Amino acid sequence: MSTIPTTPPSGFRDFLPDSCALRAQVIETISRVYRSYGFCPIDTPAAEDLAMLMGKAGGENEKLIFKIMKRGEKLDLSKGAGELADMGLRFDLTLPLARYYSRYRGVLPTPFKAFHIGPVWRAERAQKGRYREFIQCDADILGSDSVQCEIEVVSAVLTVFKQLGLDAPAVLLNDRRMIFALCDHWKIPEDRRGALCIALDKLDKVGAEAVLADLAELLGGAVPEDLAAFVQGGETDLDFLKTVAPEPMAGLLQIRDTLAQVSDSYGPFTISPSLVRGLDYYTGTVFEFRSPGLAGSIGGGGRYDRLTEQFGGAKTPACGLSIGFERLMLVMEEAGGAKASGPDACLTVFSDELRLQTLGLAKRLRAAGLSVDVYPGTGKLKAQFKYADAVKARYALVLGPDEAAAGKVKAKELATGAEAAFGIEELLARLAKP
Amino acid sequence: MSTIPTTPPSGFRDFLPDSCALRAQVIETISRVYRSYGFCPIDTPAAEDLAMLMGKAGGENEKLIFKIMKRGEKLDLSKGAGELADMGLRFDLTLPLARYYSRYRGVLPTPFKAFHIGPVWRAERAQKGRYREFIQCDADILGSDSVQCEIEVVSAVLTVFKQLGLDAPAVLLNDRRMIFALCDHWKIPEDRRGALCIALDKLDKVGAEAVLADLAELLGGAVPEDLAAFVQGGETDLDFLKTVAPEPMAGLLQIRDTLAQVSDSYGPFTISPSLVRGLDYYTGTVFEFRSPGLAGSIGGGGRYDRLTEQFGGAKTPACGLSIGFERLMLVMEEAGGAKASGPDACLTVFSDELRLQTLGLAKRLRAAGLSVDVYPGTGKLKAQFKYADAVKARYALVLGPDEAAAGKVKAKELATGAEAAFGIEELLARLAKP
Repeated sequence: MSTIPTTPPSGFRDFLPDSCALRAQVIETISRVYRSYGFCPIDTPAAEDLAMLMGKAGGENEKLIFKIMKRGEKLDLSKGAGELADMGLRFDLTLPLARYYSRYRGVLPTPFKAFHIGPVWRAERAQKGRYREFIQCDADILGSDSVQCEIEVVSAVLTVFKQLGLDAPAVLLNDRRMIFALCDHWKIPEDRRGALCIALDKLDKVGAEAVLADLAELLGGAVPEDLAAFVQGGETDLDFLKTVAPEPMAGLLQIRDTLAQVSDSYGPFTISPSLVRGLDYYTGTVFEFRSPGLAGSIGGGGRYDRLTEQFGGAKTPACGLSIGFERLMLVMEEAGGAKASGPDACLTVFSDELRLQTLGLAKRLRAAGLSVDVYPGTGKLKAQFKYADAVKARYALVLGPDEAAAGKVKAKELATGAEAAFGIEELLARLAKP
Repeated sequence: MSTIPTTPPSGFRDFLPDSCALRAQVIETISRVYRSYGFCPIDTPAAEDLAMLMGKAGGENEKLIFKIMKRGEKLDLSKGAGELADMGLRFDLTLPLARYYSRYRGVLPTPFKAFHIGPVWRAERAQKGRYREFIQCDADILGSDSVQCEIEVVSAVLTVFKQLGLDAPAVLLNDRRMIFALCDHWKIPEDRRGALCIALDKLDKVGAEAVLADLAELLGGAVPEDLAAFVQGGETDLDFLKTVAPEPMAGLLQIRDTLAQVSDSYGPFTISPSLVRGLDYYTGTVFEFRSPGLAGSIGGGGRYDRLTEQFGGAKTPACGLSIGFERLMLVMEEAGGAKASGPDACLTVFSDELRLQTLGLAKRLRAAGLSVDVYPGTGKLKAQFKYADAVKARYALVLGPDEAAAGKVKAKELATGAEAAFGIEELLARLAKP
């Protein structure tokens, strides 16, 4: 019989128990914090109708989508490649949220504060640090156009980072409407504005000279003086920005100042007019979290007031963000933080005859809230102790005939090797978490 | 612009916040109990290589699989329908576990106790109570042939049911080897044994007469007298079974008696020689949990000693089970148990001027471990109170100019309508969980 490879598909990952436990802990923290801010959990399917995923931005998203083949008679090769699939795996959690809200808005609170944690899939080329299956952790507020939404979602994510013990991330803030106002001011032709945004967005990565070269090529000649000045440092001239885009700037300043005051200067919060962010559905504010010592962002979001329109509902003001969970895990692992721990005790099984008594002991310890691994089998104690080490138990316990006769249990602390026999009450006290 | 439908694909589901919260609670309980029994969390991808999913039992599983289309140049229609897909969504968690264990056995403890909770996908016709995407909650022990494995996995699941407050499920136990021994005893031809198992498995659903009719047809005439006697009640004759299959029966009796003694008669535990269970990879014991008042099982499993062989590794004794999460949720919802609750308090925002003070209060309350929703916006208090009702908050809080001046917060208990103003310490005491 030929054997089947044991590796997962390219860009997909298995998780060993330690890593899996750490990921679960982080997800639990995110979920707890989102809840403490009044966000409600929602869930949607992994697969969506292909038409929904392609949406109006069809062309652009299509290459991201893992498509699921039609089944049975519905699969008809003669109809061509475009008719082979009817569903696809979701590539983000925002589009499903817009569908969800359009379907259920009648039974949901207004405004609706939702959080959604789950995997998404993207058919991109797999490379280091970029996976085809990864977790997103979104929080969104639908049905309100108040700056309170931006303040609330950003505060929630900062609380997540704080509770995970991470250094303060820098928070960059911008408003798409400010970029458009700047384009008006610079008299950039309509058809060049998208490309200009992409060029400006690279400013903090490639530097002013490279951006200016891009802009010169893009605009077919000299770069207007005030645009050049903006690229060369003027982007921090807030007075200029207030003149060009008074309304967006007023909102951004309110968000920045409120965040700075309620966050105990856990920030900093910087208005960054060159910040664009990739997704084309943002209509107003955009923001991004940058972790010290990590290129790129560990999360971000913005306001997207028009996304529910494609489902036929009324226009819904909306604001949300996503934590870049996989990048967050990178930071967590580099920080060498939270190691997954094993069970409180591993209980050896001395013999078949003593199994019942051993299981009774396990039951008693578990009822006290302890995690207790019972060795799955009997056999040499040496192998059972080796197992206790392998599962990183704090204690290995032995209930042999001598201990049973004396009403005791032998406990060996694996970190120190210290060993002693205890009565059950003493044992419970000893095993209680430090 | 044409609008896109808001329903998920057939057989797939959205979850409203209450339902989502309840599902998360149940998953949390299952995960906590599995952990307390010393099982380690693992995770594997949603998508696996198609060759791995088809495995040696290819033909049978193929129709269950949602296939993912190849992308770019690799998609070549001229090669025919069999060459269009390269991956598929996993249809259970056991096959991925076998792959995972074969890949990592060198760095995992021996034996290895794993749990895995996650969605699986099956391309079956959607119908009431049967979904195409559903959660499985597996616990498995690999690398041990001891009956201790069966005892441990069944005990863990019984503890889950107990902690969820469910009535004791009946536990049916059998051993595939006993069925084979019975077939020898009844002189059933090799090529009829599979069909005979399927016929016997229906005994508790369709009754003895229907099974006898099936068997007559299957065996092409009269049913041997002792087989007929077995169907008509003899399946509970344990002495007969001990004679026919002494070794499997000894194991089953040990498992049954130990479970009965360590489970405080939370059971009952019944040896049921007609129990087969569908999946063809079981090689020894099989077991199933039946909830009172629900047709079919809410979980089950068995011993599958040969599953890792297809990955080229050594033969690995293995035993595991799966909780039927969706059926469990049905039982939980019918029992009307655990309702999801809203935040402890919803904090209204009186005005933009008082926002900062309001957010400071929210911060203080959250730091005390309370979940506090801040109304996302400002506006009429009436609308904000309506919102507090909609999100099922316990209290609505008002910090208006009068309260701010007096250093107080007005709190309205929404269940009773009782309203009073409190200082911050009084408020914390009042909001503390009952």
